[in-house]
Amino acid sequence: MKRQIINDPGAAVTEALEGMQLCYPDLVSYDTDRELILRATPARDKVGLVSGGGSGHEPLHAGFVGRGMLDVAVPGAVFASPTALQVHEGTLAADSGRGVLQIVKNYTGDILNFTIAGELAGDHAVDTEMVVVDDDLATDTNDDGDGPGRRGTAAVVAVEKIAGARAELGGSLSEVADAARRVARTSRTMSLALQAGTHPGQDRPAFDLGPDEVELGVGIHGERGIDRVRFASADELAELLIKPLVEDLGLGRGSGVLAIVNGLGSAYPLELSIAARSVHQLLSARGITVARTLVGTYVTSLDMHGFSVTLVPADPDLLKLWDAPVRTPALSW
Amino acid sequence: MKRQIINDPGAAVTEALEGMQLCYPDLVSYDTDRELILRATPARDKVGLVSGGGSGHEPLHAGFVGRGMLDVAVPGAVFASPTALQVHEGTLAADSGRGVLQIVKNYTGDILNFTIAGELAGDHAVDTEMVVVDDDLATDTNDDGDGPGRRGTAAVVAVEKIAGARAELGGSLSEVADAARRVARTSRTMSLALQAGTHPGQDRPAFDLGPDEVELGVGIHGERGIDRVRFASADELAELLIKPLVEDLGLGRGSGVLAIVNGLGSAYPLELSIAARSVHQLLSARGITVARTLVGTYVTSLDMHGFSVTLVPADPDLLKLWDAPVRTPALSW
Repeated sequence: MKRQIINDPGAAVTEALEGMQLCYPDLVSYDTDRELILRATPARDKVGLVSGGGSGHEPLHAGFVGRGMLDVAVPGAVFASPTALQVHEGTLAADSGRGVLQIVKNYTGDILNFTIAGELAGDHAVDTEMVVVDDDLATDTNDDGDGPGRRGTAAVVAVEKIAGARAELGGSLSEVADAARRVARTSRTMSLALQAGTHPGQDRPAFDLGPDEVELGVGIHGERGIDRVRFASADELAELLIKPLVEDLGLGRGSGVLAIVNGLGSAYPLELSIAARSVHQLLSARGITVARTLVGTYVTSLDMHGFSVTLVPADPDLLKLWDAPVRTPALSW
Repeated sequence: MKRQIINDPGAAVTEALEGMQLCYPDLVSYDTDRELILRATPARDKVGLVSGGGSGHEPLHAGFVGRGMLDVAVPGAVFASPTALQVHEGTLAADSGRGVLQIVKNYTGDILNFTIAGELAGDHAVDTEMVVVDDDLATDTNDDGDGPGRRGTAAVVAVEKIAGARAELGGSLSEVADAARRVARTSRTMSLALQAGTHPGQDRPAFDLGPDEVELGVGIHGERGIDRVRFASADELAELLIKPLVEDLGLGRGSGVLAIVNGLGSAYPLELSIAARSVHQLLSARGITVARTLVGTYVTSLDMHGFSVTLVPADPDLLKLWDAPVRTPALSW
């Protein structure tokens, strides 16, 4: 068994959620009956925000519950969608009378269960809207909607932050949903790994890489990437992520972006700061302004060693919502 | 060479600091001439706080520069003290007319260079005081002051936070120094590693561990620990840290503490939340209240896989300063 700081592998998710509640009792509450993470003090008279999905991506989503972001997080088992019933309970719990926005990463199981939960919520006279986050450029196959489409990855943090701020400012359900969809529609992410993550209790990473190999376009559930490239410097690795992002988003001289430089699990702070420098310099050289940066470990794939870059085209309205106060276990300012 | 996300190993520290400035230009400024990290907007009319030491412990100390914590961080090379001249410049830069508190982890080189810098500051009519942080219980040899004493590790975050808050509230140099010394005197830390960190550009970790071994009482510069124990569950590993801390601090039923559960580099968020749960449960079972918890990756030893626990006996005065606003790259609320 690969050595990790855990007790029973099967209880790792539950225990981590218990740990979060014990550490931040003023911010979050863990409802073990309904398997939900809620704000310690529920919000009143605002559009509710619920997100969730498989675990193993900590601090996502439970770490983003709090003032200025989510009302409720619905955690599944590692890499497995929460049940429709669980999402249903979470959707109802997020409502304070003005409807609920469901923020869902684009995976078949999550979409299905959030859709069922949204329909059930209607039976309780709770209005819902859903925003699907599908930012992972590596899975963009231009299939005209026939395939599963792009996966949802780290852009979900930006969607949750922007929608959270809009809701806190008193937006209606459709206004909050519009703000969220705008971020989701315009965000793209590229990821790479020097080593895949290892499922708690297992011996081996999700896949093996040779000593000189890097997986480009990797997913956050142990999915393989689109290419295997040679190990290189931080600047060269960052360029492998930045080039396709800039091309796909049509960015150029005069563009402004919000950048998320995200550690995928075991990348350490020195590495992430160096990677963030590479990202800034590569964008700057193209005349693109990085208006805001979030650098740290926010959307992980267990202990994967690697990083992702998310770019969100930014205008003053978006930056104002980004800068709005937030207080959650994993993001505060 | 062990694969890390870096460019030139010799430039890793400088590039990481450049990265931090690029990501947080509203918070920090990197003065490459003087090799200092400064607040982007210098504070006025308050006691200045300067800290520093060898790098490789990111986000310490540069990540704690900002309102409510440090005014200046003085980074050395990886695991090497900054020079006396550099500390001198940092001490002067931290002064806004009310004197400067130097916060120094207990290592011979750091103490020497901060002492020289303090004496030189006197020549510039800048009052200084020094607080030495020596929290690492594993190095407590009861040698009556003849040896180097305990090392300084993660308690420095609490010292910087508390002193920073006291200074922000308008305390005099002696008041700020008293608050800092009280935290430093009463804090203790224990650490363990499943794998040592690897210096950028090197092939191997600082030391090797067998597949079933854990290093107990490890330092943050690749120093070996006091014992080698068998790998065990998170609960059992946490108990190895908690038991000596509780005994040394004389904690018992009715005590209250502030706990820092700190990742040493590559421990991933799921692990740290589980470890934090263990810490809470082990203290709670002894009747000790954890009044506040900081859990995350704050004081690292490069990519070491492990964690430390710091306990600080807490009273309402300390908690009020802990809860005071802070805005830095690595700590904000």
